[in-house]
Amino acid sequence: MRDVAIIGIGQTPVGEHWDKSLRHLAHDAIMAAMRDAGVATADALYVGNMLSGELNGQEHLGALIADFIGLRGIEAMKVEAACGSGAAALRVGIMAVASGLSDVVLVCGVEKMTDAPGHITTSALALAADQEYEVSQGISFVGLNALLMRRYMHEYGVSKEAFAGFTVNAHRNAMTNPNAMFHTPVTETAYARAGMIADPINLLDSSPVCDGAACVVLAPAERYRSKAKALVLASAVATDSLAIHDRRDPLVLDAAVISCQKAYAQARLTPADIHLFELHDAFSIMSALSLEAAGFAPRGAGVRLAQDGEIGLAGRIPISTMGGLKARGHPVGATGLYQVVEVVLQLTGQAGPNQVAGARVGMAQNIGGSGATVITHILGAV
Amino acid sequence: MRDVAIIGIGQTPVGEHWDKSLRHLAHDAIMAAMRDAGVATADALYVGNMLSGELNGQEHLGALIADFIGLRGIEAMKVEAACGSGAAALRVGIMAVASGLSDVVLVCGVEKMTDAPGHITTSALALAADQEYEVSQGISFVGLNALLMRRYMHEYGVSKEAFAGFTVNAHRNAMTNPNAMFHTPVTETAYARAGMIADPINLLDSSPVCDGAACVVLAPAERYRSKAKALVLASAVATDSLAIHDRRDPLVLDAAVISCQKAYAQARLTPADIHLFELHDAFSIMSALSLEAAGFAPRGAGVRLAQDGEIGLAGRIPISTMGGLKARGHPVGATGLYQVVEVVLQLTGQAGPNQVAGARVGMAQNIGGSGATVITHILGAV
Repeated sequence: MRDVAIIGIGQTPVGEHWDKSLRHLAHDAIMAAMRDAGVATADALYVGNMLSGELNGQEHLGALIADFIGLRGIEAMKVEAACGSGAAALRVGIMAVASGLSDVVLVCGVEKMTDAPGHITTSALALAADQEYEVSQGISFVGLNALLMRRYMHEYGVSKEAFAGFTVNAHRNAMTNPNAMFHTPVTETAYARAGMIADPINLLDSSPVCDGAACVVLAPAERYRSKAKALVLASAVATDSLAIHDRRDPLVLDAAVISCQKAYAQARLTPADIHLFELHDAFSIMSALSLEAAGFAPRGAGVRLAQDGEIGLAGRIPISTMGGLKARGHPVGATGLYQVVEVVLQLTGQAGPNQVAGARVGMAQNIGGSGATVITHILGAV
Repeated sequence: MRDVAIIGIGQTPVGEHWDKSLRHLAHDAIMAAMRDAGVATADALYVGNMLSGELNGQEHLGALIADFIGLRGIEAMKVEAACGSGAAALRVGIMAVASGLSDVVLVCGVEKMTDAPGHITTSALALAADQEYEVSQGISFVGLNALLMRRYMHEYGVSKEAFAGFTVNAHRNAMTNPNAMFHTPVTETAYARAGMIADPINLLDSSPVCDGAACVVLAPAERYRSKAKALVLASAVATDSLAIHDRRDPLVLDAAVISCQKAYAQARLTPADIHLFELHDAFSIMSALSLEAAGFAPRGAGVRLAQDGEIGLAGRIPISTMGGLKARGHPVGATGLYQVVEVVLQLTGQAGPNQVAGARVGMAQNIGGSGATVITHILGAV
């Protein structure tokens, strides 16, 4: 099995791209990554995307995008794991390079969510949940996360205000990320006053509906040593039931626990070795649960890391360093690649005002549904 | 890179499964394959599926099905390449085993198409074509294939009746396949009288809308030598433009040519070495074009193999030996796995009355769209 390096990264700004179609967004991110890598072609393209069928009337993105970027003929396909689709595609790309079946591999996450009316987007996002046991009851995806947050507050005696730090941190970091959707700071007061969406989740607990694409170029580490920007130290996928009621414990993301344990074992690292953690803050509650599952806080104490300022750029475990899903934005199938691109920026000292000092090891964790698929990648500086 | 073996196969009958949901169909095929392999667990599950979001209100099939088969926790994801999704998932499974990242891997293709009204299914199938350049003009997927068939007839001076042999052969073979959807013979007269769908494609040129699931269990060939039922000699994916008007030549499936050339090179074989060919006969015209692209007939002469009886079980190149997409049925995301399961039945002498005598090497080719993704696998007997 060959070691895998990331030799190029690219991203589009996250936002409402009324002037670009899905294939254009993917094109822009891929071209940027190929320029960054200094490669003119590739052996394969794996596309992470969740909702193109529902929101853009288009499946078959692999061949579509391979052709549109001028690489008609190469191996290409789409990989889907709900909001974890981006990291799932990365996992496939890593297998392609590790196996020796391909050398230069493009992995692109892309999602164009703003072309559809809001109620269609809400229905489409619910495809991540269990149709027969959850969605058929009429609950939306934000509603499911609201149940989790309410249960967390109840079980651990945590106030809603305790979550404010996640949003404040994300928006603060997004201000200096030119590719982030939001460049406005959020105060604790603003958080407390934000309009309710699905009690207790308010507008500022929620990541936005948006468009974007991000891409990495993979290659075998040994042969591409001079181009390597970061090394893949671990890649681990784990799953749980889609339906939250059917979990062992709704407040423990078992799939995140397993995925992290596998990743730590592969990289021979512990949580103490991780310099930054791009976690899946689609909702504030997911930040708390992810920090606990990854071993950065005991059960029920994830939220305290935000209250204590430990998640900031100079904190014990910086998260959402470029704004996270909350403020950089969450174009769902693209998110897993944005996370990895941002970790590479940190490990190569290119994160500008958002730089985590001395970052040598970064972890990215992409989650499908409310924890049913969890994909963890650990990257190391070259 | 490790060699990969197929150690188990499973399939459900193809048909209208009103009593089973998508997850049940997948479950049945996977359990059959695991029993066949004599394994009680697996490291990963890759699901080939195209339309679950559109037709079943469910994405995120990887985790959903992993949980439903009792393997909550394992790596799982969905792979999509339109009607080529099944073989695309197989490709990912092969990479997982070849790389050494996984040992026992489940690859399941599943599609449940009959739950939705017909016009929704027609729209959903068109997601395989180019939304911006083809579908937006109002054409359906069968319409696109009709344009190809008309062009073939025009350019080569071939009559519509010349295609009858493909349908007659497929239905003849399906009669003795208990898992086929249709068990009724079709005569040339019946073919000539069949109702027109999109001129010149009639009802008996077209594969049916249906439900089904098929599964293979993969493992490293060396470690699982005693369980191996067939060896993966080649696995090759190639792409072309989705939009037919944008191709170099609409009557040459360039992606099939490239995919076959790569596969032959990997296996160090030529067309003369292939004992049977499970091709993608979604429409009769695709049989003719596939035979030509794979090197079994020169340009414009694919249809003659059917006229001359060369595609029968005792012919020069048997195709659709268990009924093909036309008569076994075409549950789109599952088809690529049905093809491979059938090749394994042939290579292990389990094809019953459909057995191709002395079959030692079989080829399966799964096509996404009207030729935009073509995935070829060559399997060898143990």
